[in-house]
Amino acid sequence: MAESFTRKETGRIEAFSDGVFAIAITLLVLTIKVPTASELGVDQSLSSALLALWPHYLAFVTSFVTVLAKWVNHHRIFTFVQRSDHTFLYLNGLVLMLVTFLPFPTALVAEYLLHPEAKIAGAIFSGTFFAIAVAFKLLWHYASKNGRLLGGGRSVDPEHIEQITRQFSFGPFMYLAAFVASFVSAGLSVVFCLSLAVIVGFKGWPRK
Amino acid sequence: MAESFTRKETGRIEAFSDGVFAIAITLLVLTIKVPTASELGVDQSLSSALLALWPHYLAFVTSFVTVLAKWVNHHRIFTFVQRSDHTFLYLNGLVLMLVTFLPFPTALVAEYLLHPEAKIAGAIFSGTFFAIAVAFKLLWHYASKNGRLLGGGRSVDPEHIEQITRQFSFGPFMYLAAFVASFVSAGLSVVFCLSLAVIVGFKGWPRK
Amino acid sequence: MAESFTRKETGRIEAFSDGVFAIAITLLVLTIKVPTASELGVDQSLSSALLALWPHYLAFVTSFVTVLAKWVNHHRIFTFVQRSDHTFLYLNGLVLMLVTFLPFPTALVAEYLLHPEAKIAGAIFSGTFFAIAVAFKLLWHYASKNGRLLGGGRSVDPEHIEQITRQFSFGPFMYLAAFVASFVSAGLSVVFCLSLAVIVGFKGWPRK
Amino acid sequence: MAESFTRKETGRIEAFSDGVFAIAITLLVLTIKVPTASELGVDQSLSSALLALWPHYLAFVTSFVTVLAKWVNHHRIFTFVQRSDHTFLYLNGLVLMLVTFLPFPTALVAEYLLHPEAKIAGAIFSGTFFAIAVAFKLLWHYASKNGRLLGGGRSVDPEHIEQITRQFSFGPFMYLAAFVASFVSAGLSVVFCLSLAVIVGFKGWPRK
Repeated sequence: MAESFTRKETGRIEAFSDGVFAIAITLLVLTIKVPTASELGVDQSLSSALLALWPHYLAFVTSFVTVLAKWVNHHRIFTFVQRSDHTFLYLNGLVLMLVTFLPFPTALVAEYLLHPEAKIAGAIFSGTFFAIAVAFKLLWHYASKNGRLLGGGRSVDPEHIEQITRQFSFGPFMYLAAFVASFVSAGLSVVFCLSLAVIVGFKGWPRK
Repeated sequence: MAESFTRKETGRIEAFSDGVFAIAITLLVLTIKVPTASELGVDQSLSSALLALWPHYLAFVTSFVTVLAKWVNHHRIFTFVQRSDHTFLYLNGLVLMLVTFLPFPTALVAEYLLHPEAKIAGAIFSGTFFAIAVAFKLLWHYASKNGRLLGGGRSVDPEHIEQITRQFSFGPFMYLAAFVASFVSAGLSVVFCLSLAVIVGFKGWPRK
Repeated sequence: MAESFTRKETGRIEAFSDGVFAIAITLLVLTIKVPTASELGVDQSLSSALLALWPHYLAFVTSFVTVLAKWVNHHRIFTFVQRSDHTFLYLNGLVLMLVTFLPFPTALVAEYLLHPEAKIAGAIFSGTFFAIAVAFKLLWHYASKNGRLLGGGRSVDPEHIEQITRQFSFGPFMYLAAFVASFVSAGLSVVFCLSLAVIVGFKGWPRK
Repeated sequence: MAESFTRKETGRIEAFSDGVFAIAITLLVLTIKVPTASELGVDQSLSSALLALWPHYLAFVTSFVTVLAKWVNHHRIFTFVQRSDHTFLYLNGLVLMLVTFLPFPTALVAEYLLHPEAKIAGAIFSGTFFAIAVAFKLLWHYASKNGRLLGGGRSVDPEHIEQITRQFSFGPFMYLAAFVASFVSAGLSVVFCLSLAVIVGFKGWPRK
């Protein structure tokens, strides 16, 4: 019974985290502002004004897909974690804080992608993703080290754990590459991040 | 037991999606801005300023009712789906991305409904609804094709499945009509979308 | 089993509605804008600028307490409702739409409470509350009429139902009075609404 | 059975409160505005503009960690509370209202931290935290006084209750000190609040 109560505790942390992910992903759209009629230039049509917003659409889609992929990964961690402690709570809080922060770099890179200082915006954008990947690695590392917070032997397959550990260790390197790419081109870095989320991100969902 | 665990997985996807729907539907009100006292013209009364916001109320109500109807449809799909895989996750993510995007075209059509370029705004508004209808059709098609992700025989009535398939195939055509109507008149297109949501949308709720 | 499945359906509607209530109540704070340093007048202190925002605090508290009281009432209805149908879904959607709309009249009355046209803002504010009270009455009336959507005899006490019916019939009259009061004074009307929520609103929580 | 139904009631209050906490914590990021390209001064680089936003990052992190710690505390209270009544509902509503209010003082202290009137902003920021701590103390005091709303004897350890009571009594004093510190320096007060959340706040999570 103590066991199931503990399971309930991690269930609560997961439900709260899910709420945060769902809200953060939905707030992203607020970074795209409708051009007001008075903002349109004299000889600028609405369609050209809307097309000029393409960096905002790109940044929106990139952050959306990334948060979705991170949610899948977060869920995967909680499939295995059966207990919680203070350090785990702190690390999960770090993940959530970085995820809720995302609308800021998303708006930033959208605003500056066509600006001479785009690289700084791209570095902060990809750097935030890098930080999220590191936080995920720390969270999983802490939970899985010697099976610290995982369930008992029966339900956990060591090879599976090993495989997840490899994936979470791999993530930061990929996003570090995206971060480095931002010093070449902000646009390249954003497309890199989008590709990572689409190609690698969803791999984590438990298969049946 | 593996079966019930799988059921729990789809339950989690559904709960997360529900959160996204609930937040997206509540954010719609942010598209209606209160006119500040200083924005009121010298001889403009507050009541006339508020009446002039009617395109915002119309767009708000249309998007609200549509998201609600889509939530009902989403729920209906998950009543039948018992398993998940990567493709299903991607397609569900596409549905969610389009739904969270809605505040943007909603604000757009409200801002431009009385503007010479209203038709472009109306096309984007109804076009987003069309895209949502297509995404729903893809999601259901993928899940139900040869019963891929549906529950076992006992609980699923093939005729019922057939009927839902017809409805989801029908949706894109209706919204395509609304999209075409936007080239005649943006207002007509919005009213068309509102009617679709009110008349057709709620049909999907399981009857008992 | 069909019965319990039905119960699960209303559980989903309630959970979705709860999410909408929780988000609507949390968005209210966005109606209070921080005065920027550059907006402060030359000889205006920050404290006087913050004090001048008192209509925003009053409107925030009034709407917050009202939404909380409405959530309690909504929950009470779902304690009894065991089935759902299309009309019930529509009526519940009407309740939710009016609740998510609340940040708009809240910001409106806060912006105009000290303005010559305060009465119009007060009328829309209290009028929205009146509309919510009517929607709640309709929802309960539809569900409880001849026990249409309520549980079977054993679990429902007719006298208790009767008492709730009286309370929901009473609500619209109270808010109609607040609406009428807005033509005397917007401030009076807001304080009336606040008092109603504090004094009457929480009565609905099931006592044990 | 009446017992379990009661438990379900507090479960609903807790789930609703969790939603409010999750939304409030995610809205905090909206207090950080991206400087638009046109707002950058002629000889101001984007990086210097972003560095100048540091009070916003500090305020964001402080409020985020505090809300997270408060959520942990809120959960701890509901681990023990088994019944609800009107007064408890009011007090819980007071906690939620103060938590949803937080984005306002957060934006305020960020906007004014480097302004001559920083102390007023710091006083309101730490004062809100003080009010939250008092509201938590009241909530716990009301629920635990003579075991009013707690579970029956078997599941509650009086010493544990005693220990929590001491902690909740301690909180207001700590935040009162942070409030007093704001009259020395707003920055000191913010850092004090951040330290409190990091060091003391997470202690409340049930250990197993």
